[in-house]
Amino acid sequence: MSKPIIVPVLAQFMTATAGRNMTAPAYAAVVVGVLTMVLLTVNPAYETAHHWVQGVLWACLTFFVFEWLIRIRYAAMSHRTLSYLMSFRGLVDTACAFAVPLALAFGAQLRTAWLLAVLWLVKVVPGIPGLRQLRRVLVLESRPLLSVLLIFLLILFLGSVAVHFLERDVQPQTFGNVPSALWWAVVTLTTTGYGDVVPVTPLGRLVAALVMISGLGVFGLWTGILATGFAAETRRDNFLRTWESVSKVPFFASLGPSAIADVTHMLRTMDLPARTMIIRKGQQGDCMYFIASGEVEVDLPGKKVTLADGAFFGEMALLGNNRRGANVITTKVSRLLVLDLVDFRLLMARHPDLAQTIDAEARRRELENK
Amino acid sequence: MSKPIIVPVLAQFMTATAGRNMTAPAYAAVVVGVLTMVLLTVNPAYETAHHWVQGVLWACLTFFVFEWLIRIRYAAMSHRTLSYLMSFRGLVDTACAFAVPLALAFGAQLRTAWLLAVLWLVKVVPGIPGLRQLRRVLVLESRPLLSVLLIFLLILFLGSVAVHFLERDVQPQTFGNVPSALWWAVVTLTTTGYGDVVPVTPLGRLVAALVMISGLGVFGLWTGILATGFAAETRRDNFLRTWESVSKVPFFASLGPSAIADVTHMLRTMDLPARTMIIRKGQQGDCMYFIASGEVEVDLPGKKVTLADGAFFGEMALLGNNRRGANVITTKVSRLLVLDLVDFRLLMARHPDLAQTIDAEARRRELENK
Amino acid sequence: MSKPIIVPVLAQFMTATAGRNMTAPAYAAVVVGVLTMVLLTVNPAYETAHHWVQGVLWACLTFFVFEWLIRIRYAAMSHRTLSYLMSFRGLVDTACAFAVPLALAFGAQLRTAWLLAVLWLVKVVPGIPGLRQLRRVLVLESRPLLSVLLIFLLILFLGSVAVHFLERDVQPQTFGNVPSALWWAVVTLTTTGYGDVVPVTPLGRLVAALVMISGLGVFGLWTGILATGFAAETRRDNFLRTWESVSKVPFFASLGPSAIADVTHMLRTMDLPARTMIIRKGQQGDCMYFIASGEVEVDLPGKKVTLADGAFFGEMALLGNNRRGANVITTKVSRLLVLDLVDFRLLMARHPDLAQTIDAEARRRELENK
Amino acid sequence: MSKPIIVPVLAQFMTATAGRNMTAPAYAAVVVGVLTMVLLTVNPAYETAHHWVQGVLWACLTFFVFEWLIRIRYAAMSHRTLSYLMSFRGLVDTACAFAVPLALAFGAQLRTAWLLAVLWLVKVVPGIPGLRQLRRVLVLESRPLLSVLLIFLLILFLGSVAVHFLERDVQPQTFGNVPSALWWAVVTLTTTGYGDVVPVTPLGRLVAALVMISGLGVFGLWTGILATGFAAETRRDNFLRTWESVSKVPFFASLGPSAIADVTHMLRTMDLPARTMIIRKGQQGDCMYFIASGEVEVDLPGKKVTLADGAFFGEMALLGNNRRGANVITTKVSRLLVLDLVDFRLLMARHPDLAQTIDAEARRRELENK
Repeated sequence: MSKPIIVPVLAQFMTATAGRNMTAPAYAAVVVGVLTMVLLTVNPAYETAHHWVQGVLWACLTFFVFEWLIRIRYAAMSHRTLSYLMSFRGLVDTACAFAVPLALAFGAQLRTAWLLAVLWLVKVVPGIPGLRQLRRVLVLESRPLLSVLLIFLLILFLGSVAVHFLERDVQPQTFGNVPSALWWAVVTLTTTGYGDVVPVTPLGRLVAALVMISGLGVFGLWTGILATGFAAETRRDNFLRTWESVSKVPFFASLGPSAIADVTHMLRTMDLPARTMIIRKGQQGDCMYFIASGEVEVDLPGKKVTLADGAFFGEMALLGNNRRGANVITTKVSRLLVLDLVDFRLLMARHPDLAQTIDAEARRRELENK
Repeated sequence: MSKPIIVPVLAQFMTATAGRNMTAPAYAAVVVGVLTMVLLTVNPAYETAHHWVQGVLWACLTFFVFEWLIRIRYAAMSHRTLSYLMSFRGLVDTACAFAVPLALAFGAQLRTAWLLAVLWLVKVVPGIPGLRQLRRVLVLESRPLLSVLLIFLLILFLGSVAVHFLERDVQPQTFGNVPSALWWAVVTLTTTGYGDVVPVTPLGRLVAALVMISGLGVFGLWTGILATGFAAETRRDNFLRTWESVSKVPFFASLGPSAIADVTHMLRTMDLPARTMIIRKGQQGDCMYFIASGEVEVDLPGKKVTLADGAFFGEMALLGNNRRGANVITTKVSRLLVLDLVDFRLLMARHPDLAQTIDAEARRRELENK
Repeated sequence: MSKPIIVPVLAQFMTATAGRNMTAPAYAAVVVGVLTMVLLTVNPAYETAHHWVQGVLWACLTFFVFEWLIRIRYAAMSHRTLSYLMSFRGLVDTACAFAVPLALAFGAQLRTAWLLAVLWLVKVVPGIPGLRQLRRVLVLESRPLLSVLLIFLLILFLGSVAVHFLERDVQPQTFGNVPSALWWAVVTLTTTGYGDVVPVTPLGRLVAALVMISGLGVFGLWTGILATGFAAETRRDNFLRTWESVSKVPFFASLGPSAIADVTHMLRTMDLPARTMIIRKGQQGDCMYFIASGEVEVDLPGKKVTLADGAFFGEMALLGNNRRGANVITTKVSRLLVLDLVDFRLLMARHPDLAQTIDAEARRRELENK
Repeated sequence: MSKPIIVPVLAQFMTATAGRNMTAPAYAAVVVGVLTMVLLTVNPAYETAHHWVQGVLWACLTFFVFEWLIRIRYAAMSHRTLSYLMSFRGLVDTACAFAVPLALAFGAQLRTAWLLAVLWLVKVVPGIPGLRQLRRVLVLESRPLLSVLLIFLLILFLGSVAVHFLERDVQPQTFGNVPSALWWAVVTLTTTGYGDVVPVTPLGRLVAALVMISGLGVFGLWTGILATGFAAETRRDNFLRTWESVSKVPFFASLGPSAIADVTHMLRTMDLPARTMIIRKGQQGDCMYFIASGEVEVDLPGKKVTLADGAFFGEMALLGNNRRGANVITTKVSRLLVLDLVDFRLLMARHPDLAQTIDAEARRRELENK
């Protein structure tokens, strides 16, 4: 009886896996596997339950090998085996599946080999939200960041040679050679300050104080650059995501390209799962919504109204009535465009025709609901 | 004789309490209670004055139970007992009133049970100014912040497994298992650097240096994201608060919506208690004020002029006369709109009619005062 | 013979002192005095040269008492003694002059009393450039900053009570009471991390890790708020300083108020001492200069041309000729308005008449110099 | 046989060296030299291979002396010896060539003298990308930065004297004099926190807590100022670099100055080496490219098209076709101007004629390729 249920589930899982997305079981395997690996290194835990611990680890490994096999097969079906194997995802999959067995084959101890299970975490990387955005910031700001990194290295070397020279006679153990002094310098310049290696001579401390203050400066520059880059990228990202959606709302179609650019600058995109409450009756409202894709249900007294792509709702809040008049819930995965009160007023001022359309529609609905 | 005074005070306190705001006695009870709890844990203090210490704590607790009872009663009167108990405020109130007694009932030691008095601090949370603003920033920027957090965790795990592998033979005590290494990694990646656990092998230190520098990077991204989000939120918040007030000033009523949006962008809202000096005679002035609500008193030579909602003052400073000519004091709680010299000039350029009105009014007043 | 020289110098010094500005000797006395006080606490230095060290300190103190007397006298002459004594400056002056003698009078040891000489540093505060700007940022952003501070305190108390509860049995010495735990929490939450007090139990470390990560978050918010406030304040400050100067340049007088606001947004104010080289012949040029006040000398081949208030120079760099053609040196203290290449081009586009004036003047000069 | 090859290579190297740029061999010598110097201080490494280590160091030194000689000679040829010697580059070159020999001549130990080889790193400074930009930020923001530095010093001195006073009796070893307390204060205020010197009295810890929290504040201000300055500088730098390139693209020549300023604000400059793939077939495209200088090759099916200065490509991505249709590779060192999808749409709205030109050219190419 269970087979007819398992088969389609497995088929669906295989297709999802082949689509190279992380499936829910894959996420679970990563989390469970890595935590179990951590447990494996704790002696009391290992000794009392090493069968269980190892069982879980082998199960996770089997899962990843299985995943790798499915992906290889699907890739082979479309004659892209090599391109898959050479892609970031392919390399990670291969490493995750074979690192531990290979280590064992090369004679590593069992508990040492399992440490490589930490690589499974890398599988999560492509699924991190906003990673692409962060990478773009790093690429666009790479020149000043590199510049700060070089200044960091310069201070590191100059500081550590100076302190080595000043402290080597007093503390030959810790400042006796430049690599040790470099260790001190890194610990100091990043303001970590373990305190395992500390200058004690007055001049050594003076140099150390300069290194610390330089550390603050380097850090400030670093943060300033990233903040600047991030602000620019956020603006750009928001615009792109929104432009695409705006073009799908018939409401804005009548506007000229200049007005559309204006509107796009003002709207914020919001992706929601199904059955999410967007507006709660009686709440304070300060924005209205356009449906780029999906469907919502407005829970009016006595009846339920369904709104689909291109419709808008919540406009009452912007036309003087602050309290929300009805619950609104998504019925499908939906992408909404949010127009804040702030921007609605600017928009009204610049494009009175748009404001009139919203006004007219609001009036029409009010009459209808009476 | 004291009864007739106490009764209305108590009634007023009960109404204020029922309104679910933190009353002044409640703030006092939180501060005194928590500080006394801290004292309770200090042996000499406890031994010399434990009757006093416990007395204060029981008094505070009684206060919070009393507060809880009042709120329950008022909630019951409007048939909202359950919704109160399930709200954030209700849950906190209940926890604050019953955590310590419950702990005592379950057999905890007296000094241990009183530690739970630290929960009283949570009562202050809803009263923190600007908390809503901070929460909006965190919500709007949640995707990139989550992304940075995941990168943080990734570096944490990869770094700690690597250092565990490199250091476990040299320092089995501190790097002998991955949880210990994770502790080291958190301490290092946040640049806290206690120095209780420090790598000593060259390779271990190299990995540690990379972890530290990554720490700076993660921190920089984190700050950059929050700074970006905060800048956007500040702009929005200011606009919203000001728009509301601008609409109450008849002076701006004649402007079209586009001009009002312009003006709103320029004004800053300022809430002042009664009897606050706004302008001191002889000071350098660089802004003018509109009264959104409240009342001020202008202390002219020989007479006092009272200005109310919709009036403006301090415009002389913007029309060439830099020194303030009179003291201006609020007589009620007032909300003022501040127009900086900078923005006044931009406004004059864009809306000459508005500038003329201000100019005419200023001239009229000057004549009147001569 | 020396008297005739000393008397006017002394008179000048007294007038400068009475003007309540820090005079150069006062700065010297602060720096020398504080460094000598530091020296006083070092035993070997004190023992070998305590006559010298004390002599210098008494000399500095005498200077500050003398300064205080002069100011009191001048204040008395204009019947403002009390207002001087109650002002920030007056309080600091009084404290600097009498703190050490009073401490000695109350029986403090000599070396202890002199420690109060550190107060002399506070005299420098009102002279810090840009302090007013920093204060404005702190005032304007005070609500969110306070909010972050309260969150900081909340985490501090919750974290320290939790760690006290978890660690008190294992480390009664360091976590035995809440004040000790609070010390640990401050050290951790600011990411200082001395390592004198460190949790050792697994749960204690987990709470500590959360406190550290919260520390990063609090810090990021803090920085974000300050960065936002600072950006706004810089824009405002620049505009104000520039507007004042622009109005003094006849060149811009013909522009309407909207254009002046535009120009003001683009110009940067620069204050230069006399005999400063502004342009070096042969350098790459990317800006032009307007003289708001002062005088400059253009070192042309064969002759020297002097330009005064309202004139402009360096415009060649913006009209295609990148190399500077002559040295330009200030002859007086001057305030220049700098127009960057970037902004010049925007200005040309928006106000073609202005561009033509610059162009015509440039051509005229070129012909003249041929 | 080798001579005919070596001679022109040497000549080319000498010319490159005389041009005062860092040549690739110079970079190599710096990196190898400094790393070898680090090795020299490690006892085991030095003892087993000191001939090798010293050989490498002498070789590097010889190289730098040789470089210095070439530059002196070329400078002498153009009668600029003195100006070369007095320039930053000349001083660094001289120091790098003669510091170690001079130290040896003055009787320093061999291993001590070689420590000066760390100065070689300074040679890299003028080659750091974006250094000029960082310097401009520091110069423009110097007033507020100085202000923060003075506040830093103020807290440093006040804090250390206070803690010295409070802790000197309990810990005479570490807080017995103010310089030691200053060391503690620097370590604390920069949030480094070695933990070698820690206050233990309750009052001392309270002052320390205030110093730490001030540390966060100072740091936040510092970062905020740098972030603000950096944002402004980035905008300016980008505009300048782009303006220069835009003027070389005939395509934009027809636009008026206002439109050119608009376009310049939107374009991003990108410098690419030869043989770099710009567009990969099948990728998602979100920008188009203009060639400011250089040459690219478009790999169309069946033929290769070469585009040179002034041409544009990748416009399909902006006209609805998201997938890139062909590989595009640079054939020379090229400077490209990138127009993002975001900005293209704004540009279309504001300058419809420009959009039409792009549209027409795109249509023409499409027909041609069919």
